[in-house]
Amino acid sequence: MTDSWANFKAEVGADLHLDLHGTGAEPGSEAGVRAGTGAGARARSGLRTGLRDALREAVRTGRLAPGTRLPSSRTLAADLGIARNTVADAYAELVAEGWLTARQGSGTRVADRAAAVTRKPGKPAHPARRPATRPALSLFPGTPELSSFPCPEWLKAYRKALTAAPYEAFGYSDPRGRPELRGVLAEYLARARGVHADPERIVIRSGYVSALTFLARALRARTPAARAVAVESYGLDHHWECFRSAGLRIPPLGLDELGARVGELDGMAGVGAVLLTAAHQFPTGAALHPDRRSAVVDWARRTGGVVLEDDYDGEFRYDRQPVGALQGLDPERVVYLGTASKSLAPGLRLSWAVLPEELVGMLSPHEGTSSALEQLALAEFIDSGAYDRHVRAVRLRYRRRRDDLMAALAAHAPQVKVTGIAAGLHAILELPPGTERSVIRAAHWQGLAVEGLSRYRHPDAPGEGRDGLMVGYATPTDSAWAPTLRALIRSLS
Amino acid sequence: MTDSWANFKAEVGADLHLDLHGTGAEPGSEAGVRAGTGAGARARSGLRTGLRDALREAVRTGRLAPGTRLPSSRTLAADLGIARNTVADAYAELVAEGWLTARQGSGTRVADRAAAVTRKPGKPAHPARRPATRPALSLFPGTPELSSFPCPEWLKAYRKALTAAPYEAFGYSDPRGRPELRGVLAEYLARARGVHADPERIVIRSGYVSALTFLARALRARTPAARAVAVESYGLDHHWECFRSAGLRIPPLGLDELGARVGELDGMAGVGAVLLTAAHQFPTGAALHPDRRSAVVDWARRTGGVVLEDDYDGEFRYDRQPVGALQGLDPERVVYLGTASKSLAPGLRLSWAVLPEELVGMLSPHEGTSSALEQLALAEFIDSGAYDRHVRAVRLRYRRRRDDLMAALAAHAPQVKVTGIAAGLHAILELPPGTERSVIRAAHWQGLAVEGLSRYRHPDAPGEGRDGLMVGYATPTDSAWAPTLRALIRSLS
Repeated sequence: MTDSWANFKAEVGADLHLDLHGTGAEPGSEAGVRAGTGAGARARSGLRTGLRDALREAVRTGRLAPGTRLPSSRTLAADLGIARNTVADAYAELVAEGWLTARQGSGTRVADRAAAVTRKPGKPAHPARRPATRPALSLFPGTPELSSFPCPEWLKAYRKALTAAPYEAFGYSDPRGRPELRGVLAEYLARARGVHADPERIVIRSGYVSALTFLARALRARTPAARAVAVESYGLDHHWECFRSAGLRIPPLGLDELGARVGELDGMAGVGAVLLTAAHQFPTGAALHPDRRSAVVDWARRTGGVVLEDDYDGEFRYDRQPVGALQGLDPERVVYLGTASKSLAPGLRLSWAVLPEELVGMLSPHEGTSSALEQLALAEFIDSGAYDRHVRAVRLRYRRRRDDLMAALAAHAPQVKVTGIAAGLHAILELPPGTERSVIRAAHWQGLAVEGLSRYRHPDAPGEGRDGLMVGYATPTDSAWAPTLRALIRSLS
Repeated sequence: MTDSWANFKAEVGADLHLDLHGTGAEPGSEAGVRAGTGAGARARSGLRTGLRDALREAVRTGRLAPGTRLPSSRTLAADLGIARNTVADAYAELVAEGWLTARQGSGTRVADRAAAVTRKPGKPAHPARRPATRPALSLFPGTPELSSFPCPEWLKAYRKALTAAPYEAFGYSDPRGRPELRGVLAEYLARARGVHADPERIVIRSGYVSALTFLARALRARTPAARAVAVESYGLDHHWECFRSAGLRIPPLGLDELGARVGELDGMAGVGAVLLTAAHQFPTGAALHPDRRSAVVDWARRTGGVVLEDDYDGEFRYDRQPVGALQGLDPERVVYLGTASKSLAPGLRLSWAVLPEELVGMLSPHEGTSSALEQLALAEFIDSGAYDRHVRAVRLRYRRRRDDLMAALAAHAPQVKVTGIAAGLHAILELPPGTERSVIRAAHWQGLAVEGLSRYRHPDAPGEGRDGLMVGYATPTDSAWAPTLRALIRSLS
């Protein structure tokens, strides 16, 4: 018996004893255990687990040093007043796990390499975590009003879907997603967005990044010579990153009030695809001009390229009916990308893509999709009309907020020009060159988190950047909306 | 007016008229529309949508040829007995979408490039689809008994979680997943699997492939010189593919009855990680020997390598307590991978990884995770004890099935040796060399789908392959179990 064991026993022996007999077994109840009754078996299992965990922890933390010889199971059992098999079983488990070794002739010892794992003292947990001092109000774009999530209706749809689900829905399913949802979506997208959607060509993904990651891989495999995907010169870096990490370049297209300058595609080498937010450019807010819609589809037909249409907020257009999806013009050349993140909630992680036939076959059979149960719930939610009702209701709320924003600006900051207001969940306040940073700082002082346009600018975008403020007016809760608007106005003056 | 329009009108004019007036507007109700009442606005919206969709469809299918000039909105409105603005709005939408063009002086025409999209006649929808003639019974491994999914308890947890969820749970969240689930899992994994789990280091993914894809990327970025991940010489090809598609080689380790021969790692060049199914090798069923557990952790410490521990079915061990996770031996060197796919249902798409600290920081802030609502539901499900109850209940069922299998084999096919029976959801029936295919064919004739061991063999595995039958005894429903077992016995004789 080494010092290490003696110390361990001295320090924690009493606790261990107490723990062991506090697990549901009366001291002395080993008779019941040996008799093999159900209650006895459970009690013994508790004793074994308690002993095992206490020993493992002692080895892990180094309290029992490597090489320490443990008492025989008979000795320890007598010492603790429990059955010998209980100790032997605990030892055997720890041997199987590699904490202890058992060798003929040398007894049971703490394994040599099971040295104490020293953990570095608490580092900042994750780089993505926001600082603790963030402002209380926020106009960060990209999120719908989260408190408007229709909990009772969603729960009703989930319950109904779960109850009606066939057994196979709980298993590994079609990598495209559930057929029920693909069928309902095909009908919905045709009706609401003019998408030419065949359920066989719809794939459900757990978010845009997942969809873009698949597309990046598929595009590379499809046209190995095309090593670039053109993107808009303002957009989301983490979308661009999906292409970059697949080894694709991302040359930027210019942007003006008619949307992306798709004519520039003709001068670009090796471009196999272009990513466009055609209905409502993110973030600048322009709708792609009809001539450019035609031109980009022409480009795709002429060059064998693919258009990726990011229709992230196509359901939200306020002053006239939505512009239908570009995809309808040529479903063999345009990939349509949609999501429930703006219309319902990002937390659901439900996105979809409508693929040209040639890309459907490139989906790996083991490609991940999202939860089958929530896919069935969304199918039921759309099919019952709850989705349409929800979109109508929140569209009205967002439209009112946009009107509030316009009225407040007209009254208190008439010098500020607003763009991108016809659709979506955000507007752009144009700022005089060189003032973006100071306005963002001023907002921060007002307790308002707000983003500038410049952080969405492509690193290789030509010419001067634009100064502007992104106003994600869907983000605040109803009760925070009025103070948020006041803080915004104060930051502008 | 060209022939194309005249033909279109002759063919579908009557239908269109009927459709338009069947959308909720009474013929002649345009007065109400003009008066701007709510009901009138809705009716007009229905008329516009109907006209727009009929026209779009006609252009799409080629019934209205490119260049066709459409009647003026005034003419068509009079013709259909509806308001002129309704027609003008429908035209404007189709112009915005690119189907029509409107030019000063030449009126509204069908756009030149909006040619009919001809779709290839119905190809087989998806390569992953199984043939229609598949057998009615199945012993394919990898799936729990789907009819045992605890619907009422899960629904209860989902409802409770949804009701209690903070608003921010519906938004974009921590890329590691919900803190509620990570906290509960840390406690559960420590208790049930001996995992040294810190909630800050747990990441939730929508399935193993998603987790392995992240790990492949992180390992490449971490050690650019290490261009290989060693794997077991029998395993799942779609897991290996995650590494291959990240540009990593996958040299195979030999396998024997003590598990993977991890000693071979020392002779391999450029290996930065090793993927192991330590508790229950998939598919051969061996548990990694304690000496090898120590040896592989030693290897990782010595070389700076990483062990990826795939603990896919660690909760299912029948004849003794589970072997605790390897990860506990050194959380800074071992990544633990677990999943709800075997314990609950693959359809949930819920997996988790416990990462060494250095890998946590490599998670991109926009990495996709799975549905926040189902993460909260699983947290509640575990926390309430329902998860433990469910695992205990199905473990008992699977154990009975395994015993049925052993008894049936002993009685009717005593020559067949069975391995890998101590744990998991499948067993291996060893077959004489060269007989695997014929047994699978015989099973097929008995209406039983069953897989051979050889399809899990690494393409570069050295030596002779083993012949064997994979028996996924968890797969059949309760009512199918007896006939499935009979079909298996018949195929073996």
